[in-house]
Parts: sequence; C-alpha cells; structure tokens
Amino acid sequence: MDADTGPRELPLGRLEAFSDGVFAIAITLLVLELGVSADAGDHLLPSILHEWPSYLAYVTSFLTIGTVWLQHSAITGALRAGDTMLYRINLLVLLVTSFLPFPTKLAAQYLGETGPERVAAVFYGLTLLALSLSLTAFVRYAADHPHLVSDRINAEQIEQAVTYAPNFAGYAIGIGISLAFPTTGVLIYLVSAIIRGLPAPTLHRLLRRLRPRR
Amino acid sequence: MDADTGPRELPLGRLEAFSDGVFAIAITLLVLELGVSADAGDHLLPSILHEWPSYLAYVTSFLTIGTVWLQHSAITGALRAGDTMLYRINLLVLLVTSFLPFPTKLAAQYLGETGPERVAAVFYGLTLLALSLSLTAFVRYAADHPHLVSDRINAEQIEQAVTYAPNFAGYAIGIGISLAFPTTGVLIYLVSAIIRGLPAPTLHRLLRRLRPRR
Amino acid sequence: MDADTGPRELPLGRLEAFSDGVFAIAITLLVLELGVSADAGDHLLPSILHEWPSYLAYVTSFLTIGTVWLQHSAITGALRAGDTMLYRINLLVLLVTSFLPFPTKLAAQYLGETGPERVAAVFYGLTLLALSLSLTAFVRYAADHPHLVSDRINAEQIEQAVTYAPNFAGYAIGIGISLAFPTTGVLIYLVSAIIRGLPAPTLHRLLRRLRPRR
Amino acid sequence: MDADTGPRELPLGRLEAFSDGVFAIAITLLVLELGVSADAGDHLLPSILHEWPSYLAYVTSFLTIGTVWLQHSAITGALRAGDTMLYRINLLVLLVTSFLPFPTKLAAQYLGETGPERVAAVFYGLTLLALSLSLTAFVRYAADHPHLVSDRINAEQIEQAVTYAPNFAGYAIGIGISLAFPTTGVLIYLVSAIIRGLPAPTLHRLLRRLRPRR
Repeated sequence: MDADTGPRELPLGRLEAFSDGVFAIAITLLVLELGVSADAGDHLLPSILHEWPSYLAYVTSFLTIGTVWLQHSAITGALRAGDTMLYRINLLVLLVTSFLPFPTKLAAQYLGETGPERVAAVFYGLTLLALSLSLTAFVRYAADHPHLVSDRINAEQIEQAVTYAPNFAGYAIGIGISLAFPTTGVLIYLVSAIIRGLPAPTLHRLLRRLRPRR
Repeated sequence: MDADTGPRELPLGRLEAFSDGVFAIAITLLVLELGVSADAGDHLLPSILHEWPSYLAYVTSFLTIGTVWLQHSAITGALRAGDTMLYRINLLVLLVTSFLPFPTKLAAQYLGETGPERVAAVFYGLTLLALSLSLTAFVRYAADHPHLVSDRINAEQIEQAVTYAPNFAGYAIGIGISLAFPTTGVLIYLVSAIIRGLPAPTLHRLLRRLRPRR
Repeated sequence: MDADTGPRELPLGRLEAFSDGVFAIAITLLVLELGVSADAGDHLLPSILHEWPSYLAYVTSFLTIGTVWLQHSAITGALRAGDTMLYRINLLVLLVTSFLPFPTKLAAQYLGETGPERVAAVFYGLTLLALSLSLTAFVRYAADHPHLVSDRINAEQIEQAVTYAPNFAGYAIGIGISLAFPTTGVLIYLVSAIIRGLPAPTLHRLLRRLRPRR
Repeated sequence: MDADTGPRELPLGRLEAFSDGVFAIAITLLVLELGVSADAGDHLLPSILHEWPSYLAYVTSFLTIGTVWLQHSAITGALRAGDTMLYRINLLVLLVTSFLPFPTKLAAQYLGETGPERVAAVFYGLTLLALSLSLTAFVRYAADHPHLVSDRINAEQIEQAVTYAPNFAGYAIGIGISLAFPTTGVLIYLVSAIIRGLPAPTLHRLLRRLRPRR
C-alpha cells in the first residue's frame, strides 16, 4: 500500500479464483439458451436438429472461453505476482467474457434468418474480437512488467506467449465474411478459437513456418 | 514452454478450480428447470407430484455429474502434474458436462408423453455416454503418461481406476431399452451413475467376482 | 486405493472447493426468481412491495444456505482429511442444497394465496429439514471417525459441534404451524436459520441453560 | 472453539473461496437479463441499440461488484485470520451482492420509461448504498481487530483502506438526483464504482488534495 511507488504488488490467488469462477459460469450459462420450441413434442428429433445454429454458437463460445481460460491460466502460471493495474485489466477481460452469452444468444437465435443474421454474426464477432483484445492487453501488461514474472520463465518464453496470443486476423476476416455469409463467418470464429487452443509449441512451429522470427 | 519436447507440464491447481466451477454450476443449474405449470395454484400438491419426470431427470443428472466429479477428483488427486494435452481433454469433459442440462431438460419435459419421450430418452443417454467416454479419455491419458502420476501411486492403482471408470455397458443397455421403454431406460442411467458412485474398493470387489482380472 | 481396509482417505481441498461452488451458486440463483409482474410499470413501487413473500423466501433460503455453509466450513476446518464415504455424504448435502431453489420459488409464488400456500410452506419446510438432516449426517460421520479429525481439535469440541448442529425442532414446529399459518411457519424457518447462524459459543451457552449437559 | 473468550479465529481460505464464488456468479448472472424483444428480427441493429438502459445497468452493476471484489480481496489479503463475527458480516455483504441483479433488472427494464424510472433508479441506488455500507462494516470490523491483521501491514495502511472505502456521498447524491433525472442518477452510480475502482494510492492522493488528513 505504498502510495509513492508504482502499482502495489498483489498475490495472484484470488485473481485466479475469481477469474476461474467467472469463466466457469460464463461457459456454463451458455446452455441455458438451448431449447426447442414449445410445440416441438410432435416432432422432437427434427426440432432438436433444427437448432443447429444454437449448437454452432454454443460450441464456438464454449471453445472461445475455454481457450481464453487456457491462455489466462498459462499466463498467470508464468507470473509470481500481480499488481493493482493487472487486477483492473483482468476485470476488463471478465467484463467481456461475461457479456459474451448475450451476442451468443442472438447468433443462436438469428443465424439462418436472412434479415437479421448478418447483424447478429457481426455483433458476435465484434465481441469475440473485444475479448481477444482485452486478453492481449492482459498478456502485454504482464510481459512489459518483468518484475511480475516468475524467475523460472525467461524473456523469450513471454515473447512466445505474446506472439501467439492475438488472433485478430481471424476475427477481422470472420467479421468481414459475416457481412455476406454470416454462418461462414461464425465458422471462422470457431476455427479461430480452435487455433488459439492448439498447444503453444505446435502453434509456434506453425507460425515460424509462416513468418520470420521477430 | 519448450517447443521441442512433448506437451509442457502444467500445475493442476487451476485445472481443478476451473473444473470444480463448471461441475458445480452444471449440477446446480439443473434446478432452474424445475417448476409447476402456471395454473398449478388450485391443486399445488398434485402439480408437484405430477412433475416426477423432472425429479427423475434431476436426480439422474445430479448423481451423474456428482460421480463424474468424484472420479475426476480421484484422478487429479493421483497426479503430480498435468500437461497441455490433459488440459485440452479436460475441456472436452467440461464441454459435455455443461451441455448436459439441455438433454436433461428435454427428458424432464417429455418423459411420459408417448410421442417424443423415446427421442428425449435416447438423446439424454447419448449425452451421458459421451460424458462417460470423455472422462475415460481423461483417465486413460493420465494412466498412459506415468510421469504425470504422483510417486505415491503405483501402476496397479491406476489400472484399477481405468478398470472401473467406464460404465459404457450401462448406457448402451439403457439407450437400447429407451427405444421401447423410455422411463426404464432413464432409470438404468440413474443406476449406472449410482454404480459409478460406489467406492472404488467396493466396486472393484464386485467386478473381481464378475470377471477374471486383466 | 487399498481395497482391503476401510474407506480410502482423501484430501479435503476439492471437496471444499466443489462444495463452496455449489453453495455459492445455489445462494445466488435464488435472485433469479425475483421480479415484478409484466404490467408493473404503472405502479412500480407498490409492485415491488407486493413481492414481500419473495423477499421472505429469498432471505430465509439465503440465510439457511449461508449458515449451512458456515457450519460446513467449521466442520471441514476441524478435519485433517476426508474419506470416500464423507465425499458421498457431502454429495447428499449438495443435492438437497441445489434442490432448495425450487421449493423456495414455490413459497415465493404462493405465500399469501389461500389455497396453495399451505402446501408450498410445508414442502419448503420439508426440504429445509432434509438439508438439516443431511448436514447432521455429515457432522456425525466426521465426529464418529476420529482419525479424520485434526489433532488440534479435541473430542469435546466435536461434541459441541454435534450438539448445536441439529435444529430439527425448529423445522418440525415450523412445518406444523405451516399447516394452519403458512407465513408464520416460514418465519419460523427463518428464525431457525438465524439461530443456527449464531456463533457456536453463544449458542452453546444458550443451550447449556436450556438443558443439562450430555 | 473456546466458549469463554471472544469470537473464535477462523482461517480465511473458505471465506475467500465462497465469496469469490458469489461475486463471480452475481457478476455473471447479470447477462441473463440482456435480450431483445421477440419481434426484433426485422430490425435487429436498432433493437440492440435500443437496449442502452440494459447496457448502462449491466456495466454499472458489473463494475460495482468488480470493485467491491477488488476491495474485498485487498482487505482479506491484509488479514492473517478471520473470526466468526467477520464470517457473519461477510455473509451480509454477499446477501446484498446476490440481491443486486434484481434492482439491476428493474433499472434495465424501466430506465427511459417516464413513470416508473424514478422508482427503479432510487431502488437501485439504495441497494448499491447498502452494498457499500455492508462492505464498510466488513472493513471497519477488520480494522478494529488488529489481532486479525497480518504483521506485514501497519496501522496507517488499514486506516488508508478505511478512508477510501466509503463512497456514500456518491450514492447519496446519485439517489437524490435520480428523483428528478433517473438516468443521470445511474450514471453517478457508475462513476462512483469507477472511483472506488481506482488504485488506492491514486485515490489516496486525490483525497489528500480534497481534505486534510485525519
């Protein structure tokens, strides 16, 4: 609580516990939107199959939050402490995470309906992009404050984490395509989540082939 | 974060915390589907009793998730570390777990309604089977990577865990019977959960009587 | 995983984490049932006040789960380990806890409606009694297995815990009164929760005055 | 469990875990109230924008709970133990926290509707004020029981925490203004949350300029 130096150091335990709670709840609340229409009883199997946009949105949001959680835990696992600023950036990550079920619901509801599906898919993609941006801010803040990083981790490893964290390109492309082909756009969001979910070494090797090392 | 060797080792703390969160939420969300019809006020007691399919589905899903959690915690308790692959298989277990409230809701809604109840019971059983399969994948991965296993545990004990983990037969039989007698099928799912919930030594003794040791 | 001796000892960490999750979710889900009627806009203040049965049921269930959690954490805090049986009894406590929002909802909905309020209040009381019974089973199992108890705790202290744990009398009286005066019955449930929430020493002193020491 | 001295000391682990759970759930449940009207399909973008009162209430409640959590974790991080009384005051903080989604929903629903919006905004502000009061009771109890405080923390630091904890003035002003301009009142609630969320040193410097040191 020194008022004169930089942000005060804080332990990571409760940041992790609180974040795990929000991630776990946001990822599980998504199922509440799944359901069949009230008159589905007469033809339940087709009604269940008819809900494919819900499943697509469900799996996309689940894997997005799941892989964000994977990265979040990888990052905090590399730190030895947080500070008041990192706590605040973390709240921002959680704000977007807990907002995600809303655009997910809209995508589930309107995909396949010619009029509103473009708006729903773009709104969904913008939220996913915001989530990716806030997570990147979290990673960069940690990477830029080496005194927060555990001694076991060296600079190159943090750089690796920073390198593979953003998948903005995927969301930018997905949002662009959503304007014309909303379902395809959402599929690109799904692929973006899966790519982020690949183990870092695998992804790092893929990236090394695609572009020269920074 | 070595890019050259196998999957990187990761601590288990956050995997456990995040999984506990998802299990706890999925198991508690089930209650949201319980309710009586809007005009139940005139005859509340019969209305409450009339909801028996909801209670059957509620208890079945609760005990299924509860015993999956029991096994999950037994397994992670036997490990000294995880790795990036185990984290990903764990996400798969959680994906199916958090999906379970949806087929549970359908079973609660349609059991006892001649038309759709078969579809609902089979869909429910398939999801339970998928949960069992994903949990088995989790156990097997751990058992196949002895360097992840705590020194206090020996090979035979892990084998025990692998032996009692699957109850695919129960679900296969339950799904088959659901095609003709949906409520009986769901009762078999419930019994399968209870059997999985038996303490390992008890179950192991039962299994030893039924079949020769592998 | 010894198949020959009694139930295997297990660490308490995940039992506590999972239970905390279920308690926290059940206690927080209760708010989802709060709301005003759709046409409340013209007279919002009276509409908010008109929901008093909801607030009564909300506070009663909140304080019941809250004080059950207080006792649960006091008990596990006195233990040095759990075993497979304690884990299963704990699942029973959680099953009733996560079921509680359903009778709470019915009480909130029907208190003040002459016909169904008796059924709602009795059903609510029976669930609260079941919760109290399951928690007592949890305490007694721990007290009867001294090898699970921390060395820092002596026998008399566990006996204290067992002494103050049950408030069956409160629920029995409350259920009886609910048959004639449902709202009064629910108020007795609320008082029972508050009494359980009193610090153990305070309550112990009160009890010592009321009856001879066992 | 000494029945003769003051409140018994308790470890903080489960208080933190349970509180993190309730905070995480309350903060995430808020999203369930977000949605567009059933006939929004024809004009989805205006429908999404039309929900601005929902977003305002969502962000206000999210940041309020988030900053309450920040302070709560700062306080428990400064303690070495709790006691039975602190546990009970903590339950009070959680009771108000888990109640917050209800007035948030009313604010989201009625802001912009001339008749009921004043009632909704005042009810919302009163709940936020109650949350601030209960958190202050939590801080003061800790500050008044130095034996609970970690050796690493000195008296001045606790006083700092007590100094910056209350933002009653903000809520009092916001509630007053809500009587005439409800939306402005809610904006003041939002600003109050943001001010509480500022790092303690920053806020402390701001406060030092505004008034003499106590």
